[in-house]
Order: sequence, then C-alpha cells, then structure tokens
Amino acid sequence: MASPTLPDELLSRLDLPAFAPGSVWLVGAGPGDPGLLSMLALHGLRHADSIVYDALVDERVLLLARPEAERIYAGKRGGKPSPKQPDISDRLIRLARGGQRVLRLKGGDPFVFGRGGEEALALVAAGVPFRVVPGISSGIGGLAYAGIPVTSGGEDAAGAVALVTGHASNGEVPDGIDWTALARGAPTLVLYMALKHLEAIAARLLAAGRAADEPVALVSRAATAAQRVLETTLGRAAADAAAAGIEPPAIIVVGPAVRQRRVLDWLTGAADPEDSAG
Amino acid sequence: MASPTLPDELLSRLDLPAFAPGSVWLVGAGPGDPGLLSMLALHGLRHADSIVYDALVDERVLLLARPEAERIYAGKRGGKPSPKQPDISDRLIRLARGGQRVLRLKGGDPFVFGRGGEEALALVAAGVPFRVVPGISSGIGGLAYAGIPVTSGGEDAAGAVALVTGHASNGEVPDGIDWTALARGAPTLVLYMALKHLEAIAARLLAAGRAADEPVALVSRAATAAQRVLETTLGRAAADAAAAGIEPPAIIVVGPAVRQRRVLDWLTGAADPEDSAG
Repeated sequence: MASPTLPDELLSRLDLPAFAPGSVWLVGAGPGDPGLLSMLALHGLRHADSIVYDALVDERVLLLARPEAERIYAGKRGGKPSPKQPDISDRLIRLARGGQRVLRLKGGDPFVFGRGGEEALALVAAGVPFRVVPGISSGIGGLAYAGIPVTSGGEDAAGAVALVTGHASNGEVPDGIDWTALARGAPTLVLYMALKHLEAIAARLLAAGRAADEPVALVSRAATAAQRVLETTLGRAAADAAAAGIEPPAIIVVGPAVRQRRVLDWLTGAADPEDSAG
Repeated sequence: MASPTLPDELLSRLDLPAFAPGSVWLVGAGPGDPGLLSMLALHGLRHADSIVYDALVDERVLLLARPEAERIYAGKRGGKPSPKQPDISDRLIRLARGGQRVLRLKGGDPFVFGRGGEEALALVAAGVPFRVVPGISSGIGGLAYAGIPVTSGGEDAAGAVALVTGHASNGEVPDGIDWTALARGAPTLVLYMALKHLEAIAARLLAAGRAADEPVALVSRAATAAQRVLETTLGRAAADAAAAGIEPPAIIVVGPAVRQRRVLDWLTGAADPEDSAG
C-alpha cells in the first residue's frame, strides 16, 4: 500500500521542538520494528549532524537520517569489546561542544536498563543541554509482538508487572535485587538481558516459591523479521533455551500472561478463536 | 524550525504493513506529547476509516487522520459515565464487520493497564483480525519528561522497577496484589491510576517497611503542556497531593529514582550541574 504523503503543515501542528546545535538528544528507537520509531525521533534524525547508535538499532532507521550526518557505531560487534560507557559519554560531550546536533540512538527506551540515565548525568555535569525522546521498551512492546500483554493473565496477575535486569553492571546476576520478594510480589516478571544467567535466576524464583510448571516465554530479536519465540516453563527454561539455541538479545517473561499468546499471537496468525474463552 | 519533508521513498523502505479492510489496529498513542506517536501509528491513522479514541489522546493526533475518517469518542467526559468495556469491544467488532479499517487509539500502551488485552480477546472471539501497535507507556516515557529515569537511583535501585495499578476493575485498591512483597522487591514503584487510593496504598507500603521519608513524585498530565510535578515523600504524599490539588491522570513514582529529577529535569531547564555528582 502506498503511504499517503503527510503534509508538512500537519506535522508542524505538532509543535516539534527545535534541535539546537551543541545539544544532545537521547533517543529510544523501540524494540525492533523501525515503524515503532516516534515522529519526534524521526524529526531528530532529520536534523542531527551526528548519530551515535547501538547494536540494537535497525539499519533502516539510520537511513532516515540526513545522508550527510555522521554515523558513529557505539555497540558491540564481531567479538570486539564494546566502547566503555565513559568513552561514549565523552564522545557525546565532545561532539556537542563542537557545535553539532548529536543524536544518541538506543534500542528500546533510553531510561529502561539503557544507561541513558548515566549519559544524561554526564551531559549535565559537562553543561551540555539535552532532551530525552523515550522509546517503546522491548519488555513491553517486544512482548506485544509475541502476543503477550504484560498486564494480562487474570485479575490477580493484571495488577503488577516487574521489569528486571538479569545482568548487573559487573556482568553477574544482580545481587541488589531481593529475588524472593520480587518473585512473591510481581505476578509477571519481565527479564532483560537475562539469557546468560537464566539458570541462576530461575533457581532463585523457584526457591522463592514460583512453580516449576509456570509458563515462560523467551522472545529473541523481538519485533524484527527474525523474531523467535520459545514457550517453556520456569523449571525447564534454561535447558530449553540452550537446546533451542536461543540467542541474545532476548526478553524473557515469567507468569500467566504468557498463556495469552495461545489466543493473541496476531503476528504469525496462529491465534485460535477456540481458545479465546480461556 | 521547518520540518524537512520525508520522502515517501524512505518511509516505504520501512515495510509498513497494509491496513486491511475489516481489521482492527489496537494503537498506543504514548504518554501525551503527540510527537511520541510512532510512524506505524501515523501510518494507521492515515489509512483508517474509523478511529475509536480515549480521553487521553491529544486532539492534534486526531488531526493526523484522514479528514473523512469517522472519529468516535469512547472515553469519560463531563461527568458522564464512560462507555462500558463490552460496548467498546462490540463497537470495534461491528465496525470491522462492516468492512472498515478500525483504529482503536489509546493513551500510553494498549497492553499496560489499557484493557487492550480484553479488546484483543473479544476480537479473536469474533474472528476479527487485529494488529497491536505498542505505544510508550506513561509510567516510563511520562516520567522521562519529569526527568525521572525509572531504572536509576543507584546500583541497588537500578535492577528492578514494578509497574502497578492503583485501581482494580471494581474501582477499589487492587486486592490481588501482595503489596508487602512488592514493596520489598521493587526498589522503584510506578503507580498508575493511583491518585484516588494513594493514602491507602502509601499506608500499605509503609506497613511493609518503606520509609516515610522516601521520595515520591506525582506527575500529572505527563508529557503535555499542562504537565505538573509534585515532589513529596511517601509519608506525606496523599496529603500533599490533596493540598496541591493534583488531578488525574497522574503517574506516581516511589523510590530513589525520584532524586535524579533534581539533576535531570531537562524539560523545565531546572537541572543543576552542581548536583550531578549526587
């Protein structure tokens, strides 16, 4: 279907802010599908002089930027170590001080386990003005592409969802998290970057009383053409993930919301009306 | 600043899906700022025959739709009762069965306390094809506009955030939630629709051991020109909110992430570099 051209006049009514030279926009690109980029992010891309982007950003998003904009890769690639966080912040500061409009483009949302908070603090300390352009977090929007509504699964499950990192800044299972309390308090748990430590995390949740047969879904490369969903249980999740060769990036969700996928998997068309009473 | 026209050719590279007659798109409009609408949502609006929208949707977003599209209001207004959920689902089904492209437009994200899951189940039961277009949830993106990164506030606070509803479907404080466990497990709590029951919820969190002087922010009409932020503490939140006349819709956040606002309040420009070491 041809996309009807959107008159500039309409976009101008949205009062999109000016991208000032010497400033940084911290932008979330969303979970994968480039169509989930916001108009404000697009507006930023169309004005940016340099774009510092992560591994999780679709190359079609970069094509939306001005051809003459400098594209700077700041993710991990080909086994090489990724740039250190202070180096990325320093780069943003240097570019902005050079008078550029700097767009820092991250997968998902910059403030959900995206270290956007750290970059923002560094910019403030350096006196560089910035704006945050939130994105759709993969643990919510990516799961929607797998037919899993994070606040569904029955009245008791619908009240709370916890977003949890499975990877502390030192690379280990986060110790600052009270896994027992979290397992008891959050009917639905959405785990980010948890594939490596899944066995240890599942063990903690089981020790806290979560059932071994509780449904779990692993959604690898959510909301991309390569999206892959593995449905399993808490007791078997780590072994099944290894056997199936699930690779990062992956979002892992634990809880009754996973069962909705049987009915709501709109993307692959496998939804079954017969199941909809369940 | 003039917005450079985006060539249709570039948008076409995003492979945006066709909006089939007789189908429904469940679309999240994001937390308030119309610029946070996704390109996919915009694409849907430019093709929809009818748009069923909620109270939380900015009217500038509706202006992006085709002029001839039918706009159907499904929210609460002027003290009148809002349409009941089954009536909204029936309406979506009827419109789709009439061969229309139906866009259901909600504030925030349709799957985060947005009852999008229920509407999707009703569509599946009726055999109506649908697609989900996630939006930026207000409890994440709305807080970013208040300078509050939900996964910040120190190493121990950065590992988990809980999104919690303050309003069960019967209108009461949700009883299915284990408030004690949640209070202990989630360093940061983001409460949706919790203004009415704030006193009762704060009492439960305090009873579970959260400190009375713990920082709390109430963000009313987040990411709109009317955004208002009240910073207070857990012990005083309900009284302060009443005294200040904070009105819904409001997002309430409890936890150390609130302190980041002192440094990261980019929107009002009150950020203070002197505080950035804190």
